[in-house]
Amino acid sequence: MKTFEFVEGGVTAAQGFSACGVEAGIKHQGRKDLALIVADKPVPVAAVYTTNKIAAAPVRFDRERTRSSSTAQAVVVNSGCANACTGEDGIKNVLETARLTAEALGIEERLVLVCSTGVIGVHLPMERVAAGIKKAAGALSGTGGYDAACAIMTTDTVDKQVAVELEVDGKTVMIGGMCKGSGMIEPNMATMLGFISTDAAMHPKALGQALREAVEVSFNRVVVDGDRSTNDTVIMMASGMAGNEMLTPYHSQWQYFVDALTTVCLELGKKMVMDGEGATKFVTVRVKGARTAEDAQMAARAVSKSALVKTSWFGLDPNWGRVIAAVGYSGAEVDEQKVRIYYGDICAYDQGRVADAKALKAMQEVMRKRAFDITVELNIGQCEDTVYTCDLSLDYVKINAEYTT
Amino acid sequence: MKTFEFVEGGVTAAQGFSACGVEAGIKHQGRKDLALIVADKPVPVAAVYTTNKIAAAPVRFDRERTRSSSTAQAVVVNSGCANACTGEDGIKNVLETARLTAEALGIEERLVLVCSTGVIGVHLPMERVAAGIKKAAGALSGTGGYDAACAIMTTDTVDKQVAVELEVDGKTVMIGGMCKGSGMIEPNMATMLGFISTDAAMHPKALGQALREAVEVSFNRVVVDGDRSTNDTVIMMASGMAGNEMLTPYHSQWQYFVDALTTVCLELGKKMVMDGEGATKFVTVRVKGARTAEDAQMAARAVSKSALVKTSWFGLDPNWGRVIAAVGYSGAEVDEQKVRIYYGDICAYDQGRVADAKALKAMQEVMRKRAFDITVELNIGQCEDTVYTCDLSLDYVKINAEYTT
Repeated sequence: MKTFEFVEGGVTAAQGFSACGVEAGIKHQGRKDLALIVADKPVPVAAVYTTNKIAAAPVRFDRERTRSSSTAQAVVVNSGCANACTGEDGIKNVLETARLTAEALGIEERLVLVCSTGVIGVHLPMERVAAGIKKAAGALSGTGGYDAACAIMTTDTVDKQVAVELEVDGKTVMIGGMCKGSGMIEPNMATMLGFISTDAAMHPKALGQALREAVEVSFNRVVVDGDRSTNDTVIMMASGMAGNEMLTPYHSQWQYFVDALTTVCLELGKKMVMDGEGATKFVTVRVKGARTAEDAQMAARAVSKSALVKTSWFGLDPNWGRVIAAVGYSGAEVDEQKVRIYYGDICAYDQGRVADAKALKAMQEVMRKRAFDITVELNIGQCEDTVYTCDLSLDYVKINAEYTT
Repeated sequence: MKTFEFVEGGVTAAQGFSACGVEAGIKHQGRKDLALIVADKPVPVAAVYTTNKIAAAPVRFDRERTRSSSTAQAVVVNSGCANACTGEDGIKNVLETARLTAEALGIEERLVLVCSTGVIGVHLPMERVAAGIKKAAGALSGTGGYDAACAIMTTDTVDKQVAVELEVDGKTVMIGGMCKGSGMIEPNMATMLGFISTDAAMHPKALGQALREAVEVSFNRVVVDGDRSTNDTVIMMASGMAGNEMLTPYHSQWQYFVDALTTVCLELGKKMVMDGEGATKFVTVRVKGARTAEDAQMAARAVSKSALVKTSWFGLDPNWGRVIAAVGYSGAEVDEQKVRIYYGDICAYDQGRVADAKALKAMQEVMRKRAFDITVELNIGQCEDTVYTCDLSLDYVKINAEYTT
C-alpha cells in the first residue's frame, strides 16, 4: 500500500489556493481575527456542520448554500464573535459579509462561504469587518496559511495546521488544512472550525463523501469538555490542479486518498485536544470487545466526558473505578466479570481482580507522561472505537470562569 | 389543603426506629464510618437503586432482597469503601456483613440490608467491619440519627438530615431521613445513599409507590457533576407506630403524604447540591414551555451538566450563550426565535434580542447570591421541569484530583 508524507504547511499547501489573516479589530488589539481562504477559480466544495439545534447565522447560511451548490471560491472567517443567537440582524450581517468579500475579491457573491467563532449573542461590528475584508483581500498569498491559522484562534494557544503529500495517478497531490478549537469540544463537532484544501481533481459528490467519512472518525472522535457548539463547521475545497484523474469511489486510489484525508483531519483533531483548555494530558480512550459499534462509541465517550475521570487524570490518580463506573452508565452493555481495564500496558482491573499497590504505582508512572492510553476491554463482542481527549484541570476552570461575555 | 411542618431530626425522628454511627476504622482515624438504622420490629421496606450497569455488591444484594421480600428490620451502612468491582469476594463480604449484623442484633438475617459508599475496587476490611458492627449494636439509640448521618459521609462536609411532621387520620406522623453524597451526583441517582423512615402505617406496595414517586422529582432532579455511581440507594421503612389507617393510594390523605415525603427527599437532595464538591453556587434550572416533558427534562439536565455553563456560574459570568448552546445540543426541540432566558428576573435573551450591558450587570448581581434561578422559556409547548445543581469550581477539580484510590 502506498504511503503518504507529512509536509510543512496548512491550507495553502495545495496548489491553487491563497490565504491570509489580518487584524480587523474584532478581538483585542494586536491579534489577527479575520481570515480569507481563496481558490484561484470556482472549485468543488463540501462541508459538515454542527448538530446543535441552535445554529449560528453563518452556519445556517453556509448549510443552505452548500446544499444548493457544490461550488465555491472563497471562505471568510472571523474570530472573536460567533454571530450566534443574533436574530435577523445576524443573518443580515452574514449576507453583508459575503457581499463585501465578493466585492473585494471581484468574484460572484454566490461563491463565498462565511464562518464565525467566538462569543455567542454579540453582533458583528460590521464597520470593522468591512475594513478587515478589504485589508485581507490585499494580503492574500500562496504562503498565507499560517497567518490564516492564527486569525481563526480564540482561546487556542497555538495555530493548528497539518499537510500531507501523496501520489495519485503518478501526480503529486497535497491535502492541507487548519483548524481552531480548544473548548466546547465534543464528538459531533464542537466549537471548532476546520478548513481543508487539496489540489486533487475530485468529483463534487465524491468530495462530500470523502469529507464525511474522514470527519466521522477524526473530528467526531475528539472530546474536550463535552459541550457542542453552535458554530462548528468543516469546509473542504479541491482545486484539481494536481492533474490526476477525477477522484470518485470508483477510482483505484480512492481509499488511499480518503485515508490520507482522514489522517489530516485526525491530526488536526488531536492538535485541538492537545491544546484543550487547560489540558495537561492527552488521553486516547480505546474500547474493545463491545457488543455493538454504538456500544463501543458510547462507552468511550462516557469515559472521555466524565468530570470525575478527567480530574483523576489531572491528579495522576489511577482511579480506574471511575472509568468502570462511567462505562456502567454509558448505556453500553457491560458485564463486570468480563471487563479488563488498562492504563498503558498495566492492567488495572481484570475480570473481577483489582490492581495491587505495585500495579497502581506502575499506572501512576504511565500517567506521568504527557500522552497515554486507557483501554477498556469489554470482552463480550467484536466492536471497538477510540476517542481522543484530555484531562480537566484547574486551568480549564480558570479559563472558562474568566472568559467573559 | 393540610400542610406539614419541618422539625428537628432525621432517620430517628419517627417512632419505632433507633440508629447510631461508630468508628470502625474503615476510613481515616477519628471519623465515624459505620451506621445502623434499626426498626423495633420487622417493618415494610421499599428501595430504589442506581441505574448504573456496574452495580456494587451491596446494591445487587439489596436489589435481590427487596425484590423477593418487602419486609426488613435493619440497614447497616459503611463509608470509606464502596465494595464495587470486587468480584466474588465482594458478594461474600456483603453476606458476611448481613450475617454479623443479624447476629449482633439478634434478628433474622433475611431482615438486614447492606449499603456501602466510598472508593471503588477496594475490599471491605472484614475484621474491622465485624468489630464495628458489634460496637454499633451496643450504641443504638432513639436519638442516634445525627451520629448515623455523620457515619455515612464521604467527601460530604456536613451531615444531611430532614424531618417533617404531618397529621394523618388525626394522628401525628413523622417522616425523617438522611443522605450522603456530594460528587458523582447526577439524575437517576448518584453516589448517594438515602434513608427515610416514617411511623406511618403503610401498605408495603404503597410504600414502594410513594418512594418511587418522591424520588423521581427529588433525588432524580439533582446534578453535581453528571457522573452516576455504582452504589446509589434510597431505602425507606415504615414502622406503623403512628396508628393511622393503612396508607394506600385509596386513602383520602395519600397525596398529602406523598407530597410530604417528596419534600423530605427534595430537601435532602438540595442539601447534597449545596454541599456539592467545591460548590459555591446553588442553581435552580427551570425549563418551561417545552413541547414534551422529556424535552423539558433533557434541556434542564444539559444546562445543569455543561462544564462551560457551570464554570461561568463560578466565574460570575452571565454567559447565557453557553446556556442556549446547551439547550441546543440537549436533544430538546428548540426555536431560537422563541426562546427567552432569565437569570433571576433579568431577561438575558428575548426571542432574538440579546441583553444589553445594563442587563448583563444586573444578571451579575443575581449571580453574586449563593443561590439563584436560571429560567429557560422555550415557548413551544406546555411542559416544564426543574433541576437543582451547582457550579464547577477550582475546588471541585482539586478535591477530585486528590481523592485517592
